[in-house]
Amino acid sequence: MPTRAEIDSLPLSPAHKARLLCRHNLVETTSGLAGDYVQANLIVLHSDYSNDFRMLCARNPVPCPILGWTPVGDPRKIIPTSPDVSVIEDSDFDIRTDVPYYHIFHTVDDDSYEGGKKVIIETKSNLLSTWTDNHIAFLIGCSFSFEQALTQSGLRVCHQEDSRTVAMYQTTIPLLPAGIFHGSTYVVSMRLYKPDEIEQVRDVTRPYSASHGEPVAWGWEGAKLIGVNDLGKVDYGDAQVVREGDVPVFWVCTFPPVSPHVEPHALFFMVADERIGLRRNTSIRSRKSA
Amino acid sequence: MPTRAEIDSLPLSPAHKARLLCRHNLVETTSGLAGDYVQANLIVLHSDYSNDFRMLCARNPVPCPILGWTPVGDPRKIIPTSPDVSVIEDSDFDIRTDVPYYHIFHTVDDDSYEGGKKVIIETKSNLLSTWTDNHIAFLIGCSFSFEQALTQSGLRVCHQEDSRTVAMYQTTIPLLPAGIFHGSTYVVSMRLYKPDEIEQVRDVTRPYSASHGEPVAWGWEGAKLIGVNDLGKVDYGDAQVVREGDVPVFWVCTFPPVSPHVEPHALFFMVADERIGLRRNTSIRSRKSA
Repeated sequence: MPTRAEIDSLPLSPAHKARLLCRHNLVETTSGLAGDYVQANLIVLHSDYSNDFRMLCARNPVPCPILGWTPVGDPRKIIPTSPDVSVIEDSDFDIRTDVPYYHIFHTVDDDSYEGGKKVIIETKSNLLSTWTDNHIAFLIGCSFSFEQALTQSGLRVCHQEDSRTVAMYQTTIPLLPAGIFHGSTYVVSMRLYKPDEIEQVRDVTRPYSASHGEPVAWGWEGAKLIGVNDLGKVDYGDAQVVREGDVPVFWVCTFPPVSPHVEPHALFFMVADERIGLRRNTSIRSRKSA
Repeated sequence: MPTRAEIDSLPLSPAHKARLLCRHNLVETTSGLAGDYVQANLIVLHSDYSNDFRMLCARNPVPCPILGWTPVGDPRKIIPTSPDVSVIEDSDFDIRTDVPYYHIFHTVDDDSYEGGKKVIIETKSNLLSTWTDNHIAFLIGCSFSFEQALTQSGLRVCHQEDSRTVAMYQTTIPLLPAGIFHGSTYVVSMRLYKPDEIEQVRDVTRPYSASHGEPVAWGWEGAKLIGVNDLGKVDYGDAQVVREGDVPVFWVCTFPPVSPHVEPHALFFMVADERIGLRRNTSIRSRKSA
């Protein structure tokens, strides 16, 4: 097995190196890896659910912008959503191994839970024994790109300043249902700005249409509108330091695949909550002229 | 000027006849006209706002599915969103006259209103003196198609049974903002069904992706989630007769262009709240395989 130093010294793209580091279980996150390559979230489903999932994404393109998917059963190829973007083309690519780790959601019978079903989450470093000929993987845009754009525009990214994970909240905004996927609500990430910075923040992030784009709500009234009543009570990630004059700004996140409200038989997801270097920023940039 | 009987007897398509009836101010609504042709909502904007509006629609495709638009300043041509659908091709077509009537929204200074601005609405039978070389018209999908599909599937459409206008409610679901368009919430239409009919209702309406598709919420808990707490208090249309065992089912509507929260300078809309026969249902059907 190669060492991290050996992989780092290879004459490969930063994204390819990041995938190798994942494959050999040498990293637990791809945060900060893969240079200016776009990173993506991963959702793997039984193909029985892929039509409903595509519809879910079409109806909710901001939380769930599909960048590409695998052919059913083939973990080694990514088909891009748009023909004018480049995707992973390494001959050694394998979605079953090239992500830091995978959360596998199972539904089990348990009468002590509402509906008699309980979700258990198993974490694995690869999907080699889990993937079947019926699985399909979807790659979903993530907010990596716009965080870099904020920094490059001279705007703070509070969780980076304070070395915390971004604060995330489950809102009351319903995801528009599609078939078996229903009953869930939007998740938002939150960053703090001064009120007079908000228009610039909106302008900088608006073009990132494949990475959640501009905020959904801002300010204390905006927080109430989406059901966030206490910034200190995060649902995911870390609470942030709120400095005097700061107001919260909320972006839509990729929804978590499992919610207590989603039908139990929809829980065939296998998901990594980390990200995988996928394609060049430059090719995504061509998607920005929306 | 022709009479309604004269137009009805012409050897033209039902959609073409409906447009002629509008042009000569012989009808106040296109409801029930235009046969199985698809009908659309109309939004006209100053072209300065068209990029933000396209982004708004891209981020909110369910309330605002764009079917086509005019070239800037040209009221006689519709460019379809998708090249595989047919659109109005009559040589006499004119968006300024072929809609029953037009609501024109003006913002005026008024210190007695919040923000010092007030919206006034002027209604005209045509836009001949209003349209400029800077205007662009957008045609937006409407729920006509799925109502017919419900009836054809043997499902009730309560407001048709009771000869009322469909009930509509302003929800608490925020529209995802885009540029100058922000601060507004979804509007939903409501129809009543028995709980055991809901899965069929969802299945029948799901394929109508250019006409709002399947419901966003259903049942009394669903109503609360989207901020509808009293079915009797409609925001638009008529309250419905709720029969024993009925539960509400809510579909997303095209949002009203004017809301107290939208920025005053966004109010360059001219909108007909009636609909115009646009294209064949058959060509829309080709869009259903989402």
